[in-house]
Amino acid sequence: MSDPAARPRRTRPTGRRPGNPDTREAVLAAARATFAERGFDGASIRVIATAAGVDPALVHHYFGSKDKLFLAAIEAPADPEELLPELLAGGTADLGASVVRLLLQVWDGPGRAAGLALVRSAVTNEWTARLLREFLVSQVLRRVVGTLGLPRAEGEARGSLVASQLIGVVMARYVLRVEPLASASADELVAAIGPTVQRYLTGDVDLPGVVAPST
Amino acid sequence: MSDPAARPRRTRPTGRRPGNPDTREAVLAAARATFAERGFDGASIRVIATAAGVDPALVHHYFGSKDKLFLAAIEAPADPEELLPELLAGGTADLGASVVRLLLQVWDGPGRAAGLALVRSAVTNEWTARLLREFLVSQVLRRVVGTLGLPRAEGEARGSLVASQLIGVVMARYVLRVEPLASASADELVAAIGPTVQRYLTGDVDLPGVVAPST
Repeated sequence: MSDPAARPRRTRPTGRRPGNPDTREAVLAAARATFAERGFDGASIRVIATAAGVDPALVHHYFGSKDKLFLAAIEAPADPEELLPELLAGGTADLGASVVRLLLQVWDGPGRAAGLALVRSAVTNEWTARLLREFLVSQVLRRVVGTLGLPRAEGEARGSLVASQLIGVVMARYVLRVEPLASASADELVAAIGPTVQRYLTGDVDLPGVVAPST
Repeated sequence: MSDPAARPRRTRPTGRRPGNPDTREAVLAAARATFAERGFDGASIRVIATAAGVDPALVHHYFGSKDKLFLAAIEAPADPEELLPELLAGGTADLGASVVRLLLQVWDGPGRAAGLALVRSAVTNEWTARLLREFLVSQVLRRVVGTLGLPRAEGEARGSLVASQLIGVVMARYVLRVEPLASASADELVAAIGPTVQRYLTGDVDLPGVVAPST
């Protein structure tokens, strides 16, 4: 997050950011609509700039990359591009535990407010649901699963199973507050739930949508 | 659901139900407030009746049991007291798979609209979040875990882990629609996710909040 313009935020900007605030908001609104409609992969800075009525070079100047623009548009609770590389460098044997630990670091930390706002909006708004799904798939799961060198269909199947457990931890711990999970320490949850995520990532699983599971 | 008055519903009653509709609504509103404030265990028909300004015998007459009143008050997508006994009679070896299968039967069937309404409300409203948690804990998890004869703290810990996976399946499949999980068949999901729930129920897990895990 070296570029403050790319930082997810909850309110109107208070620090110095490049460019006209109205132009920034127009770009972010166009980005939200385009990412929701086309998905992360199908959207481009060029299309978003056109929709916002600005030059693509200006969007690059304001936000940097398509990833950073996406994170700003959805007000993401954290930047996986910053947080994940260290985790992924640790090898695959403890990947499940590391993913759970990182999730809890973000949600037990300053990312919780933005995360809750995103989940609340996604549950009540179909377009935000698409944006949250794109965030999970393109920014988190694809990076995590990408380290495993799997065929695409298998990677997506394993990623969607991982998503089901991670979203469930967020809902059970931070939204519904089911005890004792809600009050457990991060270490306890990593020990209990890490093996599930590890199994989904690298274990012997009958994968949905994959004809021949890798065993 | 032999008593139609106890059936969860999405709209104003259209069939014949005992009693004055305004009285019914007053009892249901008092029930929602009381269950949210005191939890399922802490609430009683007597307290709810007093809050609604009616005689407890009338509440019993309208709704039958505290369980049925609770289901009506939260407009539950299904009645676990009806659905679970058959599942629980099947023994504990396949309990995880059976729980996932039942969840999908309810959510892939006519319970989805009511379920989604409940989840949407829970995510945006703290009081409904408490009611959904009480539903999960008192109506679902306690019955499922109860068949295992575990010490109370261990049962609650295992139940909360099960909750994290089940809520996550609902969110990933029906709200965010993460593929291929969203389009997978029930059989595929039972095969992939059933073992996780089974491990949480009966496996060797480092349980949160439990000093000596059962191994």
